[in-house]
Amino acid sequence: MATAPVWIDGRWMASTGRDSFAALDPATGRTLEDRFPVSDRAECDRVLAAADAAFARLAGVPREEIAGFLAGYAAAIDAHADELAGIAARETGLPVSPRLKDVELPRTTGQLRQAAAACRDGSWALPTIDTKGGIRSRHTALGPVLVIGPNNFPFAFNGIAGGDFAAALAAGNPVIAKGHPSHPATTRRLAELADGALQTCRLPSGTVQFIYRMSGRDGLALMRDPRLAAVGFTGSKAAGLRIKEACDGAGKPAYLEMSSVNPVIFLPGAIRERSAELAQEFATSCLMGAGQFCTNPGLVVLASGAETDAFIADVRGRFEAAAAGTLLSPQVRDALLTAVGAVRAAGATLMTGGDAVAGDRVAVENTLLSVTGTRFLAEPERLQTEMFGPASLCVIAADIEEVAAILGHLEGNLTGSIYSSRAGDDDAAYRRIEPLLRRKVGRLLNDKMPTGVAVSPAMNHGGPFPATGHPGFTAVGIPASLRRFSALECYDAVRPDRLPSALQDANPTGAWRLVDGRWTTEPVTVA
Amino acid sequence: MATAPVWIDGRWMASTGRDSFAALDPATGRTLEDRFPVSDRAECDRVLAAADAAFARLAGVPREEIAGFLAGYAAAIDAHADELAGIAARETGLPVSPRLKDVELPRTTGQLRQAAAACRDGSWALPTIDTKGGIRSRHTALGPVLVIGPNNFPFAFNGIAGGDFAAALAAGNPVIAKGHPSHPATTRRLAELADGALQTCRLPSGTVQFIYRMSGRDGLALMRDPRLAAVGFTGSKAAGLRIKEACDGAGKPAYLEMSSVNPVIFLPGAIRERSAELAQEFATSCLMGAGQFCTNPGLVVLASGAETDAFIADVRGRFEAAAAGTLLSPQVRDALLTAVGAVRAAGATLMTGGDAVAGDRVAVENTLLSVTGTRFLAEPERLQTEMFGPASLCVIAADIEEVAAILGHLEGNLTGSIYSSRAGDDDAAYRRIEPLLRRKVGRLLNDKMPTGVAVSPAMNHGGPFPATGHPGFTAVGIPASLRRFSALECYDAVRPDRLPSALQDANPTGAWRLVDGRWTTEPVTVA
Repeated sequence: MATAPVWIDGRWMASTGRDSFAALDPATGRTLEDRFPVSDRAECDRVLAAADAAFARLAGVPREEIAGFLAGYAAAIDAHADELAGIAARETGLPVSPRLKDVELPRTTGQLRQAAAACRDGSWALPTIDTKGGIRSRHTALGPVLVIGPNNFPFAFNGIAGGDFAAALAAGNPVIAKGHPSHPATTRRLAELADGALQTCRLPSGTVQFIYRMSGRDGLALMRDPRLAAVGFTGSKAAGLRIKEACDGAGKPAYLEMSSVNPVIFLPGAIRERSAELAQEFATSCLMGAGQFCTNPGLVVLASGAETDAFIADVRGRFEAAAAGTLLSPQVRDALLTAVGAVRAAGATLMTGGDAVAGDRVAVENTLLSVTGTRFLAEPERLQTEMFGPASLCVIAADIEEVAAILGHLEGNLTGSIYSSRAGDDDAAYRRIEPLLRRKVGRLLNDKMPTGVAVSPAMNHGGPFPATGHPGFTAVGIPASLRRFSALECYDAVRPDRLPSALQDANPTGAWRLVDGRWTTEPVTVA
Repeated sequence: MATAPVWIDGRWMASTGRDSFAALDPATGRTLEDRFPVSDRAECDRVLAAADAAFARLAGVPREEIAGFLAGYAAAIDAHADELAGIAARETGLPVSPRLKDVELPRTTGQLRQAAAACRDGSWALPTIDTKGGIRSRHTALGPVLVIGPNNFPFAFNGIAGGDFAAALAAGNPVIAKGHPSHPATTRRLAELADGALQTCRLPSGTVQFIYRMSGRDGLALMRDPRLAAVGFTGSKAAGLRIKEACDGAGKPAYLEMSSVNPVIFLPGAIRERSAELAQEFATSCLMGAGQFCTNPGLVVLASGAETDAFIADVRGRFEAAAAGTLLSPQVRDALLTAVGAVRAAGATLMTGGDAVAGDRVAVENTLLSVTGTRFLAEPERLQTEMFGPASLCVIAADIEEVAAILGHLEGNLTGSIYSSRAGDDDAAYRRIEPLLRRKVGRLLNDKMPTGVAVSPAMNHGGPFPATGHPGFTAVGIPASLRRFSALECYDAVRPDRLPSALQDANPTGAWRLVDGRWTTEPVTVA
């Protein structure tokens, strides 16, 4: 059977790469039929050349064309929801409904539509006008962006449909989308729909391109190439750090969403007050989607006591009672088993689970481990190994002071949650630990699990290193996510008719602009 | 004579470093009397420990205390203007008036006052509130920041008084200020004034600290230490790249303002129209302050022709007629002579200057070089060597298409200027080259020299690598410069009374906040 084509410079063509691969249905363990190409160095070079040419031409294209594409693409995805969910379910083991069709797909198209609106309006660029000084600036497109999607969101973080894709394109950049090898057919179908939506837009060929895979060596060479301006990556810490090194060395930004154990602290008053409710909430959050979320609560911190013991026993019962979810791929299963092994080797005790599920289906038992605070403090690094999947480590501290010490040893995380008594019993403990947790996380939650990541302008899906590569940016949430893929561009004494329209006096899109220190949607009127 | 003390954790104390150094008066070539310490590794460690402790305590301190310090410090500097200008003139060779006392010092205190206002008001943090989602976020302090000032602005970019200092502190971070070794007495006096201003503020000890110097090895170790959150650096590309590597490896941001040749394109119509005016403007800009500005116009691009030849001859005459300015230090002189040698070795012809001025005074002749466009295109990298000082290279292209090719080979720069005919004769040429130059520079100017960098909210004193380390940030201009030294911090479902005051419904400082998609200074009122 023929290997699938790649999409380069506006045309679908046979890959020049010699190698190919196939995906696997994790529900059956069987390799799927379709074969997909591994692009070679020459193909990466053609992609870069086309993206570079597209960037030069894109500057002269009205933003409306990009916005129109994003909106049209969203409509095409919605119109093919059943088909897409079916393909993705086969490749990922995730359920068609509600997960893929009713939750992730609408999230994806909503995100594309929000990006279209942001692109059209231009407020994301923080246009800033100093009328007296004759100086005007804004954020604007940076250049070709490579977007590398992860395994766990075949739509919402897909290299060719997800948040980074939408943000990079809405900011005016050509996108080179790299599919994730565990769901190539899903990504191919999305790319075909993108191609269809592009037919009615006047965008340069090469504005959106798509390849499936390349060798690690060729990928790093692509990232070092001066024609590439930035990288958006969601995936493992090991891969992210290699990408960071390549981009750092070439002086270009890489936005990396790497790994996170998402500490959840249950304060004693909360457990006393509503133990069963919290156990249910936590078990649901940890096991949902077989725990394959970057915001999965993988580290629970509690103060010791009889009520804590009962709470953990309750959680353990729920883990044992719940069916083990299908994992995305054998690679995820193997990495999870390795990580659980590493956490056990560092001193954690297995309370339940820990093994692969027997049979062809790719799955690991729901896994709960525990460790004392003292032991955690002796091995804080190894005991923060991310266990990507339905697994969590409970750290049982002697008291609130030991909880505080544990928080002081946390690495950077995307999120951190504190559950506390509604009656106020934990208020002093909250004040003690909140500043310690705050420093270590991008998003702080109260009485709420971190798993959901709302597409809100106020969201931060980011955090301190090594959760991400830069503490000031979010991967989710429009308009801020667009600014990652931008350069700040200033015009000093430039003649009015030579300014980009977004910085001229008139403001036809009604963008919010900071004019002489005040945010306004009005045109500039200089007396 | 005793070695000067360092300022650590709120106390002036003898340095534990064994080595010491002295500065030099470049006007006489004589070494100055005072000796200053080179801090050792243990001292760097004490500084870090104090900064770390200060950061933990600073979160609980009202912003008003920081703002009060910045404003009080500005007043103290203004009150000691004569004394400071005298000390700085002796160490830098820059004239007391107008440069130091009437231009740079007011710029410095104006910047500190703007930072105080930004700190007080809080709009810089882009507070973003999603009332329906219950999610609120803002930029906020990141942690201890090391600020390393350059040699060429003893006040306005000084590690303890300049733009990075003001921005990092106004954003809520403790600052470790490192003086530049060519003006230690100036920096010491500024630090003493900072200490005085701190006496009336309730800021933790260690919020502002000051050391003079450390070995390169100890400096890099300090930067890699996890207690340090970020670095702000202005200086050479070689030093900047070493700092970048250390910070990249440790996963922390380094904001580097490194080197720039600041291309200036004189289009043929502009030269035909006003040759003498442009020659005067260019020569003044290039030779001002002995050319020791990061925005000095070091590369001039012109299309060949008789009028261009006459223009260059005019410039050459002005270079020869002007007195050679005193350079900041023998290091600057030697680096300039080396750079001029490198540019000549790459094929440029010396038109005037090129040698050190005889005598004790540290100076190099005003230097003008030229090269053909063809030769430039054969050696684009070596011919872009920064010649920091009163030196510039004229690239004479065959025609506008060759000008375009040259711009395509430029590295990232802080600025780029295009001079064009007022009558419109160059409009087609402008449209041809502007997009090519725009990609390569942070600030684009028309009919204006790049040397001046206004402290404007719309300024971008930044640009593509290797002019800086990140294309999205500016080192000058408030509020944007504060966001470099910040983390994005999100609160999801956090109880209202636990939110930081800047994100609560009330808005007592009247900050601009993005509330449900609209910028407003009003409090949040939820129905």
